[in-house]
Order: sequence, then C-alpha cells, then structure tokens
Amino acid sequence: MSYIEIIGFLAAFCTTISFLPQAVKTIRTKNTTGISLSMYVVFTVGTFLWLLYGIMYHSAPVAAANLVTFIFAGTILIYKIRYK
Amino acid sequence: MSYIEIIGFLAAFCTTISFLPQAVKTIRTKNTTGISLSMYVVFTVGTFLWLLYGIMYHSAPVAAANLVTFIFAGTILIYKIRYK
Repeated sequence: MSYIEIIGFLAAFCTTISFLPQAVKTIRTKNTTGISLSMYVVFTVGTFLWLLYGIMYHSAPVAAANLVTFIFAGTILIYKIRYK
Repeated sequence: MSYIEIIGFLAAFCTTISFLPQAVKTIRTKNTTGISLSMYVVFTVGTFLWLLYGIMYHSAPVAAANLVTFIFAGTILIYKIRYK
C-alpha cells in the first residue's frame, strides 16, 4: 500500500468515526440545541447518496464507510427532530 | 455524464454544503453545548487528510470539496473551543 493510500484510509477512518462521539453525546444528553437541523438533513441525504454511489460504482470502501456514517448521522437527526 | 456520476456529485455537494448551516448557526448563537468536541477534532483532521489525499492523488473534486469542508468544520471547532 502506498503512503498516499494510507493517508486516504486514515482520512476515511477519521471522517467516518468522528460521528460516533457526537451520536453518543446526543443520545446521552438529548441536548440538541447547538446542532443544526439543516446540516443533519442535508448530510444524512448526502451519506445515503454516497452509499448508493458506492454500491453502483462497486466501491466497497465508499459504500461501507458511508453506511456507517449514515447510521450515525441518521441517529443524530432523529434525536434532533425528537428533542429540539 | 452517467447517472452514477450525477449521484456522486450530488452526494459530494450535500456532504460538503451541509456544514455551512451548522457553521452559520454556531457563529450566530455561539451555542456549542450540544456539539461534540471530539467529533470536530477528528472530523477536521479527517478533512485535512482528505485534502492532502486529493492533492497527492491529483483529484481536484476530492481536494476542492474537502478544502471547503475543512474551512467550515475548522470554524465550528474554533467556536467549540472558544465558547464551550
């Protein structure tokens, strides 16, 4: 694996896993006042489109990373709608 | 352009632009209580790594999209650190 690929995988790992602490915090505290509803609507739609793109383009890393992010972002979005 | 590429561009547009309403909201309200510091540290590092990857891999769309997201996420991170 080249060092460019390693940077790509590290990047994918960071932008995917970063939504986990936000999801955990939102589920625990139910405090969503500082969170933007528009952001999570557009972002969740975006990750779903990336998931579709990954499946149709036969790119397992894109599909897998965005499936995980879609679950995290979708959870935060549901909490934002429910506890705003 | 194939419909798969159109989905990819729509996906990139959504996941990039979604951070704008969050940045605007955070700058206006300075309310960062519901926002996870860990998320924005890891996410901002991740977008910077995507930017490096895009430059080194000569992928203008990856570099451009992540430069924009890096600016938005970095702004939110600075506000989170300053007004926590």
